[in-house]
Amino acid sequence: MSEGVEWAIHCCTVLATLPPQSTLPAAKLAELHGVAGPYLAKHLQALSGAEILEAVPGPRGGYRLARPAPDITLYEIVAAVDGSDRSFRCDEIRRQGPAGVADPSAYRTPCTIAQAMWRAEDAWRRELEAVSVGDIVAGLAGAVDPRQATASLVWIRNALR
Amino acid sequence: MSEGVEWAIHCCTVLATLPPQSTLPAAKLAELHGVAGPYLAKHLQALSGAEILEAVPGPRGGYRLARPAPDITLYEIVAAVDGSDRSFRCDEIRRQGPAGVADPSAYRTPCTIAQAMWRAEDAWRRELEAVSVGDIVAGLAGAVDPRQATASLVWIRNALR
Repeated sequence: MSEGVEWAIHCCTVLATLPPQSTLPAAKLAELHGVAGPYLAKHLQALSGAEILEAVPGPRGGYRLARPAPDITLYEIVAAVDGSDRSFRCDEIRRQGPAGVADPSAYRTPCTIAQAMWRAEDAWRRELEAVSVGDIVAGLAGAVDPRQATASLVWIRNALR
Repeated sequence: MSEGVEWAIHCCTVLATLPPQSTLPAAKLAELHGVAGPYLAKHLQALSGAEILEAVPGPRGGYRLARPAPDITLYEIVAAVDGSDRSFRCDEIRRQGPAGVADPSAYRTPCTIAQAMWRAEDAWRRELEAVSVGDIVAGLAGAVDPRQATASLVWIRNALR
């Protein structure tokens, strides 16, 4: 999993705390998180393409959530940044080698190994689909040190557009 | 996930069907699966290091399962080949940037985002821990075409040591 996933979820969480209609520019989101601007910009564009963020154009523009935070799941963010391909790729090696059968009808039943691997990925995906950006925000009061919360809020307020 | 995981699970499944004490050399396992010998050898050594396979030395040597097939989980095979590091790496970016707090005590509570990501990985891992090589072998009769099963058995019998 790319480090962009961590960055993207943090950005969505910050954007979920903004007043309605307000935006933060990509450069400010990068500065707040201390991460590389151009690389973060690429991920923000991917989130925008997935209709998780909305890019507001113009000199006072920037990013905001495209939907209410409870309607954005962690799975959607992961899929937007890293793609939705399965992690286990079945190359059908059962068809290879001296025991392989040329007739494709011999392989109508999916390989048991791939099925087991994909069941595990489905379980992972279900867990991430069950957690929204709204859930992350709802837990912030208990998870963020008051000193950091204060510093963040002051900084974000000054950076708002 | 590397393609070596698919190869490794297939090899363990084949070895689970051998008569007691019999072995198959790495080169024969590569030939049966139509995969690259040197690269497969590296994975077989990793499985041996994880005490999933036993490497029997000598001219009539080769690989066999180190334990009964029901005692070897798919998770163990994945961990042996690809490592057991978590897929989501928390770089603690919450500590970075202008709102970060220098006092480490501000970060005693783990980041809510990392916790959610790791819960999903735990669900994936639990699924793979619940499936053994024995389970895969138990499903073979329903999953493998009889023509392939026959060809495999004849080929394996001739390759046995």
